[in-house]
Amino acid sequence: MATQGQVITCKAAVAYEPNKPLVIEDVQVAPPQAGEVRIKILFTALCHTDAYTWSGKDPEGLFPCILGHEAAGIVESVGEGVTEVQPGDHVIPCYQAECRECKFCKSGKTNLCGKVRTATGAGVMMNDRQSRFSVNGKSIFHFMGTSTFSQYTVVHDVSVAKIDPQAPLDKVCLLGCGVPTGLGAVWNTAKVEPGATIAIFGLGTVGLAVAEGAKSAGASRIIGVDIDSKKYDIAKNFGVTEFVNPKDYDKPIQQVLIDLTDGGVDYSFECIGNVSVMRAALECCHKGWGTSVIIGVAASGQEISTRPFQLVTGRVWKGTAFGGFKSRSQVPWLVDKYMKKEIKIDEYITHNLTLGDINKAFDLLHEGGCLRCVLKLQE
Amino acid sequence: MATQGQVITCKAAVAYEPNKPLVIEDVQVAPPQAGEVRIKILFTALCHTDAYTWSGKDPEGLFPCILGHEAAGIVESVGEGVTEVQPGDHVIPCYQAECRECKFCKSGKTNLCGKVRTATGAGVMMNDRQSRFSVNGKSIFHFMGTSTFSQYTVVHDVSVAKIDPQAPLDKVCLLGCGVPTGLGAVWNTAKVEPGATIAIFGLGTVGLAVAEGAKSAGASRIIGVDIDSKKYDIAKNFGVTEFVNPKDYDKPIQQVLIDLTDGGVDYSFECIGNVSVMRAALECCHKGWGTSVIIGVAASGQEISTRPFQLVTGRVWKGTAFGGFKSRSQVPWLVDKYMKKEIKIDEYITHNLTLGDINKAFDLLHEGGCLRCVLKLQE
Ligand SMILES: NC(=O)c1ccc[n+]([C@@H]2O[C@H](COP(=O)([O-])OP(=O)(O)OC[C@H]3O[C@@H](n4cnc5c(N)ncnc54)[C@H](O)[C@@H]3O)[C@@H](O)[C@H]2O)c1
Ligand SMILES: NC(=O)c1ccc[n+]([C@@H]2O[C@H](COP(=O)([O-])OP(=O)(O)OC[C@H]3O[C@@H](n4cnc5c(N)ncnc54)[C@H](O)[C@@H]3O)[C@@H](O)[C@H]2O)c1
Ligand SMILES: [Zn+2]
Ligand SMILES: [Zn+2]
Ligand SMILES: [Zn+2]
Ligand SMILES: [Zn+2]
Repeated sequence: MATQGQVITCKAAVAYEPNKPLVIEDVQVAPPQAGEVRIKILFTALCHTDAYTWSGKDPEGLFPCILGHEAAGIVESVGEGVTEVQPGDHVIPCYQAECRECKFCKSGKTNLCGKVRTATGAGVMMNDRQSRFSVNGKSIFHFMGTSTFSQYTVVHDVSVAKIDPQAPLDKVCLLGCGVPTGLGAVWNTAKVEPGATIAIFGLGTVGLAVAEGAKSAGASRIIGVDIDSKKYDIAKNFGVTEFVNPKDYDKPIQQVLIDLTDGGVDYSFECIGNVSVMRAALECCHKGWGTSVIIGVAASGQEISTRPFQLVTGRVWKGTAFGGFKSRSQVPWLVDKYMKKEIKIDEYITHNLTLGDINKAFDLLHEGGCLRCVLKLQE
Repeated sequence: MATQGQVITCKAAVAYEPNKPLVIEDVQVAPPQAGEVRIKILFTALCHTDAYTWSGKDPEGLFPCILGHEAAGIVESVGEGVTEVQPGDHVIPCYQAECRECKFCKSGKTNLCGKVRTATGAGVMMNDRQSRFSVNGKSIFHFMGTSTFSQYTVVHDVSVAKIDPQAPLDKVCLLGCGVPTGLGAVWNTAKVEPGATIAIFGLGTVGLAVAEGAKSAGASRIIGVDIDSKKYDIAKNFGVTEFVNPKDYDKPIQQVLIDLTDGGVDYSFECIGNVSVMRAALECCHKGWGTSVIIGVAASGQEISTRPFQLVTGRVWKGTAFGGFKSRSQVPWLVDKYMKKEIKIDEYITHNLTLGDINKAFDLLHEGGCLRCVLKLQE
């Protein structure tokens, strides 16, 4: 491409300060260095992790930065030594890398790759520990190794999943975070078996993806718990069979669920990020075998607690990041499942806007009626 | 036997009040009713759960009662409908029942049988919800469905493991609680695999049995953690390869272990009953896969806590009761393993006394040099 090796100037939404509206800027995006890939982002969705860092509550948040981590695009150019993708490839940038070499990748027990973590955590690239983004010479931090609220971004090659070029990028961008997280929590982390009874706390995108995953795993009762009763109608389409609104009861929600299920659920999933709900999710599990999976991200400094007797009597407490999926290996597989109509994506997209509307899109995130809002980045 | 169908008067240690010395009394033991077994107890050991209830700290403790749950004996007589044991059988009474019929037993997922729990929790027998023990007409509560600090006891048939009559009862009595708990935590609950690195917090009988189980499972590093440095010499004989005394460090013990193991252990076991140690045991686990098993019983009302991020990044928090062993099915198998010299028992027995010395035996329990003290109950 004509732009290869050149600095590209393009539009991006820059977060200069916590909680201040993002600013659409002309950003300079440097060419990819060794082991890096520059991607033209076509579509990005917003996720609560973007909102969390933007809010200033994330103690590790760095400003100014370019947020965004649920996106799809096309490779514009690659740096030295990059062999697995080339310009023109359709890709999903993944905040969870997969290097296939580190002790995490080789363990066969986790999807948490350690290869580029120190760089992505510091908002820079591994090669020179610098950012590839700048505005008028002033450096702008990367975010989660993805920074997809930009028409072009630079990511590590170990963070790029190459996908079927036929897949609609305005849809499969959702496979960058929320949907795989919910599906994988059921399939990889909990390993729900046919006939199981499950409870889902929080029916946003993640909770609905849990419901979808549980339905496909053959769960017999899928109980959705949300303080917003409007969620039930949507949730039914994703497999939720019963709905409980904690506000309708005087007794603690864990007791409500224990009573409803003759002793507790086989699996529960926390998809909110609320530590008291995490406790309830554990305690509504059946004695002897009930397993609770934490997916929601709690505010910094908050802690979960329970009586140890809950665990001594057989309950198991787990968590999941990106649903346990190995990003480069399994995101393409999820894209294929979508193309074969084995998993939903379209149904999670409630709004479509453009990059210029990004502040409105953040407002929508906090409205009950919004699941995912997809932004179009190119003209 | 001549005593069948008769009330037996025999010696037992009665706990009349929390924290007051036990009293050796002539106790009347009623004949077994339907589904019950009367056992002549030959040997019993003491465990910390006896001391915990005796101390008055157990809010569910009932007084007066006959404590004791780690014992072996011979069936004296059986009640109506009892088919699996008969007079003369050598047995181990098990505080964890196994009925093979309830939803817990049939689940294939847990050893926590629910059949007689409401009765054993209330210190009575299921059939008439009365006690079989009395002193001069005044009823004395059962304890844990076993009450082995008595020359004769009555237990539910679902709580009786029939064992090899060749096995020495003064040794295999230990298979009633502590040793199986430690072995099973490794084999059944954690499922430690060859080459694993493990940490054991607390090197009493339970912690040493964890070490033994881990060694036989092929663990490569078995790190013992205890505030009593005298434990290391003993612990080496059970498989502990490294010893850490938290008192030797300024930094938190979880950090000491993370540094020692380049990122954390694969499995950790809490064998103390201290909620801050439970937290350390979780947090010293390796990101991505480390699993922590709670075995220790914490004081009533105490809670465990941690940041949910510990679980979201792949650590798993579990617990175990009786090591996950199904009592009637697997205690006989453990006896056989002992007879084949595949597991240790003798090495845990540091003291031998008689029933009359029981208060001294309780004192010994709190001394570092005592692992298990076995009491002889018959002349
Ligand atoms: N672990 C991971 O890898 C990962 C990945 C993506 C998202 N997340 C986290 O998952 C969580 C859910 O994400 P989302 O996009 O679905 O969020 P969302 O805001 O769309 O959905 C949350 C739902 O929870 C409901 N809710 C709020 N408080 C509640 C309460 N007390 N009881 C019951 N319901 C309650 C809300 O009404 C809403 O429907 C967030 O914390 C997000 O940061 C984690
Ligand atoms: N879950 C179950 O089914 C089950 C069964 C049996 C026993 N238990 C429990 O297991 C626990 C251990 O039993 P045991 O008989 O081995 O006890 P024990 O008292 O013989 O051993 C405890 C050990 O922990 C050490 N210790 C105390 N505080 C410590 C600290 N802060 N850091 C490091 N080490 C410390 C002591 O020095 C001692 O060596 C008890 O809580 C008991 O009630 C549970
Ligand atoms: Zn996200
Ligand atoms: Zn890796
Ligand atoms: Zn015990
Ligand atoms: Zn049962």
